[in-house]
Amino acid sequence: MKAPTPGTTDAPTTSLPPLPRLPTGPTGLGTTSLRLAPEREPEVGAEAEHSPPAPPSSPPSSPQLAPSSQRIKGLYCPPPVRDDRALADEINVRLVEWAEKEVDLYPDTDLRDALVAFDAGRSVVLCHPDAPTVDHLMAAARLLAGENAVDDYFCEAEYGGTAHRRGAALALAQSAIDPAHNVPRYEADWRTGMDSHPALRSMRSAMEYFRALATPAQAHRFRHDIVNLYLGYNAEGDCISQERTPAVWEYLVQRQFNSFRPCLTITDAIGGYELPAALFAEPAVQRAVALSSNASTICNDLYSLRKEQAGGRFHYSLPTAIAAEEDCSIEDAFQKAIEVHNDLVHAFERQAAELSATGPLLARFMTGLSNWLAGNHEWHAGNVGTRYATSP
Amino acid sequence: MKAPTPGTTDAPTTSLPPLPRLPTGPTGLGTTSLRLAPEREPEVGAEAEHSPPAPPSSPPSSPQLAPSSQRIKGLYCPPPVRDDRALADEINVRLVEWAEKEVDLYPDTDLRDALVAFDAGRSVVLCHPDAPTVDHLMAAARLLAGENAVDDYFCEAEYGGTAHRRGAALALAQSAIDPAHNVPRYEADWRTGMDSHPALRSMRSAMEYFRALATPAQAHRFRHDIVNLYLGYNAEGDCISQERTPAVWEYLVQRQFNSFRPCLTITDAIGGYELPAALFAEPAVQRAVALSSNASTICNDLYSLRKEQAGGRFHYSLPTAIAAEEDCSIEDAFQKAIEVHNDLVHAFERQAAELSATGPLLARFMTGLSNWLAGNHEWHAGNVGTRYATSP
Repeated sequence: MKAPTPGTTDAPTTSLPPLPRLPTGPTGLGTTSLRLAPEREPEVGAEAEHSPPAPPSSPPSSPQLAPSSQRIKGLYCPPPVRDDRALADEINVRLVEWAEKEVDLYPDTDLRDALVAFDAGRSVVLCHPDAPTVDHLMAAARLLAGENAVDDYFCEAEYGGTAHRRGAALALAQSAIDPAHNVPRYEADWRTGMDSHPALRSMRSAMEYFRALATPAQAHRFRHDIVNLYLGYNAEGDCISQERTPAVWEYLVQRQFNSFRPCLTITDAIGGYELPAALFAEPAVQRAVALSSNASTICNDLYSLRKEQAGGRFHYSLPTAIAAEEDCSIEDAFQKAIEVHNDLVHAFERQAAELSATGPLLARFMTGLSNWLAGNHEWHAGNVGTRYATSP
Repeated sequence: MKAPTPGTTDAPTTSLPPLPRLPTGPTGLGTTSLRLAPEREPEVGAEAEHSPPAPPSSPPSSPQLAPSSQRIKGLYCPPPVRDDRALADEINVRLVEWAEKEVDLYPDTDLRDALVAFDAGRSVVLCHPDAPTVDHLMAAARLLAGENAVDDYFCEAEYGGTAHRRGAALALAQSAIDPAHNVPRYEADWRTGMDSHPALRSMRSAMEYFRALATPAQAHRFRHDIVNLYLGYNAEGDCISQERTPAVWEYLVQRQFNSFRPCLTITDAIGGYELPAALFAEPAVQRAVALSSNASTICNDLYSLRKEQAGGRFHYSLPTAIAAEEDCSIEDAFQKAIEVHNDLVHAFERQAAELSATGPLLARFMTGLSNWLAGNHEWHAGNVGTRYATSP
């Protein structure tokens, strides 16, 4: 099954088209075909067209959140800037339509139900409050679903992943977003291969939709952050296969690659603007990106610890690495991991404030990272009691 | 042991310095401290200051090459544009000094002799004829030595690499060029960890020298191409561990990542100029990069086939993948692989000619890719009889 191409293809072009001119600020969801629930609050992001958003050190006041949200006590994180159940549901509906009709992902009703239960819709609504259209939110949601599919099928045993084929499978997964270039015969075989697996179809299609609204440099940035993720998957897989708990510093190195980073660094593309590649590559910006994505990832380690411990596989998380290195209880290690998380968020906020002071574009990008950090935390807190827990 | 820092550090900066102004053309080796052998031919690259180099479809005439060069019959490749034994020897001497005194790489005399025998000096002299100074050539040579050290120590069994730790080791190797950002305590542990292994010290030091002459975007491009390489190492490792010969198209996907690409894509930084990241990310440029690096890598498959077959490990090369898929002799598969190589070079040359027509900057970058392709071929041909062979 081949996904339709939303305006761009993997086929090489022989001339250099001008870069698409993206809007420099959100234009409001009303410009799309989505019918919004009338009671919805005006978006915080909609103000950004006239004045740059405040830096993350002074976040806007929090919207009303899902009543079931339960936060880990003492975990410091800025509050999210928008929550919208109706919009999240709309994204989920469209995501399942894409999974069913375009890429045949999780071709089993129970697994499709699990796709809705995962609630990618709420994640992208919380994490990308400045997305100018539903198409932008859908681009983020498809990438998230594709990334989960690669993990599910190629890394998790219950979907058929095996340690011995993970490295080879992840190379194929990367080629779904970073196409093969060779002679016509083998390029045709590659396209057939890409069409033959739901995870590969999903990533390829999600990337095609993303490329339709991103610049080539933003697409290339995403490729880089995804191949970093796969490097991290291979590192984690090694530790789990060998039941080896790495030193905390080594764990943190692995987690900087095996992280939410690809979700955070699309904040400008999903926000409808571009932080140029030369600015993105600056060491201070790279540090802000790493600190915010590392904190987001440790947030997941903390909320998912009980679930991971209940599962049968070898434990791989910051609390378990700290417990092993410091020979302390998991409860004490949990508290120490909270401190690491909080120090990372504070370090990010300092770095972001300094960068934000240099101009509105970096200020907006830093706000985007902060929004993602905050939305991700709220998404986890909203799943406490079902998927997640607030203590070991 | 800690390598001295040549002007930049991994420490985050809090303000954004202006991008370094790199020279837009080579300035000639005479500006450096290297004393050139008086009988050396004037460099082809030195003319580029006044007129852009010709596109790869009309390469300059070939210099006098090492008398021992033996090319594979029927293998199409443009000729190299400069060869210089004295300069190559000087690079080798400096490289061994760096290995001994700065990073303690291969702390064993025999292995250091092997480093000279590898002749990285001739490789970078052949492949980067437009390097404006010896420092630029040294930057390329150190990266090449660092990449080989990672492969030697983490992927090859004779140096201690094991399949079960390769994924975790390669994450550490990537952090040597893409630094860890977390809390001070664990950043200090990470620095200690980086200093503890020769391959990690070498990559970290090589990256520091590279960053001193590259822009942040060029450094980030290199990180991307190296993590692609490690994705490919993990894929190759899986196939070898399982003694699985992939389909030809899958082999080519793996080889697009596990390739010489990181050596080719530094052509602008080593040439003393920059192809901006936005242009580098354009699909047509990405295709030209992939075609040239894929051809370079298959060139290695062909020249090293006899050596690989003589070794004890499972065979992993384009000829063996073709022989398995088409159920033909290795001699026939060798001929078919030559055809694939030649078609790739022709496809690259078409793509490069079209891009070169759009302006002098892309023309120079395409010439740089072609120079690398040509120099790499000559370097392999020059090692026929010792390391390499012209037939299976």
